[in-house]
Amino acid sequence: MTRQQSIHPFERAIAVRQDSDGTVLAEASTDYWAFMGQFGGVTAATCLNALLRHPDAAGQPIALTVNFAAPIQEGALRLSLRRMRASKSTQHWSIEIHQGDDPEPRTTATAVLAERRQSWSHQPATPPSMPPIEALRELVLPDTVPWVGRYRFWFESGAPVRSSEPLSPPGTACSRFWLADAIERPVDMPSLASMADTFFGRIFQVRGQIVPFGTVSLTTYFHSDADELRAIAAARVIGRAGARRFHRSYSDQSGELWSPDGRLLATSHQIAYFKA
Amino acid sequence: MTRQQSIHPFERAIAVRQDSDGTVLAEASTDYWAFMGQFGGVTAATCLNALLRHPDAAGQPIALTVNFAAPIQEGALRLSLRRMRASKSTQHWSIEIHQGDDPEPRTTATAVLAERRQSWSHQPATPPSMPPIEALRELVLPDTVPWVGRYRFWFESGAPVRSSEPLSPPGTACSRFWLADAIERPVDMPSLASMADTFFGRIFQVRGQIVPFGTVSLTTYFHSDADELRAIAAARVIGRAGARRFHRSYSDQSGELWSPDGRLLATSHQIAYFKA
Repeated sequence: MTRQQSIHPFERAIAVRQDSDGTVLAEASTDYWAFMGQFGGVTAATCLNALLRHPDAAGQPIALTVNFAAPIQEGALRLSLRRMRASKSTQHWSIEIHQGDDPEPRTTATAVLAERRQSWSHQPATPPSMPPIEALRELVLPDTVPWVGRYRFWFESGAPVRSSEPLSPPGTACSRFWLADAIERPVDMPSLASMADTFFGRIFQVRGQIVPFGTVSLTTYFHSDADELRAIAAARVIGRAGARRFHRSYSDQSGELWSPDGRLLATSHQIAYFKA
Repeated sequence: MTRQQSIHPFERAIAVRQDSDGTVLAEASTDYWAFMGQFGGVTAATCLNALLRHPDAAGQPIALTVNFAAPIQEGALRLSLRRMRASKSTQHWSIEIHQGDDPEPRTTATAVLAERRQSWSHQPATPPSMPPIEALRELVLPDTVPWVGRYRFWFESGAPVRSSEPLSPPGTACSRFWLADAIERPVDMPSLASMADTFFGRIFQVRGQIVPFGTVSLTTYFHSDADELRAIAAARVIGRAGARRFHRSYSDQSGELWSPDGRLLATSHQIAYFKA
């Protein structure tokens, strides 16, 4: 096995290095390709990875909002990170991704880092009651985009549907599934940021058809801290997702990522374009 | 009634005007004061109002993320708006609010505007089943912050609780209530942006106590379009809110705003600091 191959594809996809002028450089990952450019989850994770490695960054990720203004194309990415404001315990950052000589950013993002002090803990959300992975059939989607193959999915309900006609009545917008990197690795903050975008577009299963679709804005909240993630060392997580309204070409969707032992690790919310 | 008084307090609070150099000016509203500065809902609505009146703005609000980096203090606000990227049908904007000679922004925000084309419509979310307002007791919170008095609340469940000891077991994180401006006005996009932050901190009712609390980042998705809002002309809406996890000084909360006739107008998600 060469050294190159021994690096996990996710690590390769989100790798960043500092240029001499302070710009952060990355490379679009064809391993994680989507319909029209890089998979949004990897774009989000690259932003977070660049931030967490920034010399001025302090604290743990609390919130990350990524706006997908234009698809990330093949080739180099230039990330500019600005610390907008910092207090003793909180930092607000702004991130832009540029490509080529395009003067406008293809991605804009904001992120909040914070010191996570010990506090009272309480989890009102109920963990999904899931059968073990072994009792479920693994999702097989042969003719799909590359990023899907970088993960493994075991759906308990709400798997993607392909119907010759739009479903009537519409299919459920809810899904529950086990999720893992295809080559398993313990879940950390960047991988949570990426997994937060692995909830397939709700429109696909609700209509039962693949229609033009694109996430416009994705917000992820991190409920777990780095100590907890390290202690759990989970390579598999449970995903639960739903949507509330499809109207005039846009719809929301919300997703949760749970540890196998029932702790909510992250939630993600997005608004997406659809054509139907 | 003087001319000044005939302007609705919300319109006064979110009023903006263009300075000669293109900066947008506003004034912090003591009518909508919170614990430590201006109510975040009005800050969000002021951002949206400035954006919708910008000469280069096109389309309807789809998403608005507001990061509360520092409290908005009394006095003047300077808003700088930048159009980061625009396509035929979508615009991505970035907004900062500065005060005084502070070099760092007190608020950062991103917003997406889009043309909302006719499409297939579907609402998987179930509207809350609510008794009529007349069957509910109006919330009275005498010694609270000014912004609360700019709204009226009629709780069906999950009203704020004040207990001498922390509740054990914890109270519910869920609430359902009718909501209106204290001086009623038809709900429009800026008022949705503000109402999206009227869901009281979940920690208060879960602990049964007022503890230090502050929203750090708020994301609102607009499910309704301007035509629909005008047609509904609702002055009262239904709010439903919940939270998923309180851990290491931060918790999420999600809220929905519904029209009386059962249409989901907006959803909001936030991550908030608490001390408990």
